[in-house]
Amino acid sequence: MRGLILFAHGARDPGWAAPLQATVARVQALQPDVPATLAFLEFLAPTLEAAAAQLAERGCTHIEVLPLFLGAGGHVRKDLPERLNALKSQYPALHWQLRPAVGESPRLIEAMALAALDAPPPQP
Amino acid sequence: MRGLILFAHGARDPGWAAPLQATVARVQALQPDVPATLAFLEFLAPTLEAAAAQLAERGCTHIEVLPLFLGAGGHVRKDLPERLNALKSQYPALHWQLRPAVGESPRLIEAMALAALDAPPPQP
Repeated sequence: MRGLILFAHGARDPGWAAPLQATVARVQALQPDVPATLAFLEFLAPTLEAAAAQLAERGCTHIEVLPLFLGAGGHVRKDLPERLNALKSQYPALHWQLRPAVGESPRLIEAMALAALDAPPPQP
Repeated sequence: MRGLILFAHGARDPGWAAPLQATVARVQALQPDVPATLAFLEFLAPTLEAAAAQLAERGCTHIEVLPLFLGAGGHVRKDLPERLNALKSQYPALHWQLRPAVGESPRLIEAMALAALDAPPPQP
């Protein structure tokens, strides 16, 4: 069974994660049979490892980690592959896959361009 | 004339900004008459202030700043309004508007959810 970890940076302000929580809710609405969870690099819970344990417990055998980052910098290119390698060692029976940073998806680039050109909200 | 500053975090790895450069290029393709430029909080150039000067010089009178952040944390909620207030003082004849973080746009949430469910690329 496929499982998805949407791995985001995290921030001190918990409201920061609201759009990411909305994203996971939308994923679950579109595909209720694919368990999906957020995980965070810092400030917010769960960690990548806790999210992985949760999906493994739910019976996921193919776990994909999607970095919710606009670009691929050090966190995505270096830290995340290292942590995924540790998970591979810890759960050798599971199949792990690191996906590209979500911002690199043509879907995101198009959505950001259209959002940029949206009419601005009325000023207070 | 409307002008757009797409304000992103920045990263040490210049490749990080590639999807954001693609976004600005797409904005310009969709609306060649709306000057648009990236600006960065750190690591990459130009700064917000340099981007603002550039758009003012090109004749923009209504400048919108769109934070290319997935969520609104301290950078978007505190630092950016302060810097925008300084720009308002510096260019009182221009009309400035701070847009919500791009990640809060329903367009982005939908695009991230669909991207999460895309088939993963073949493994090496």
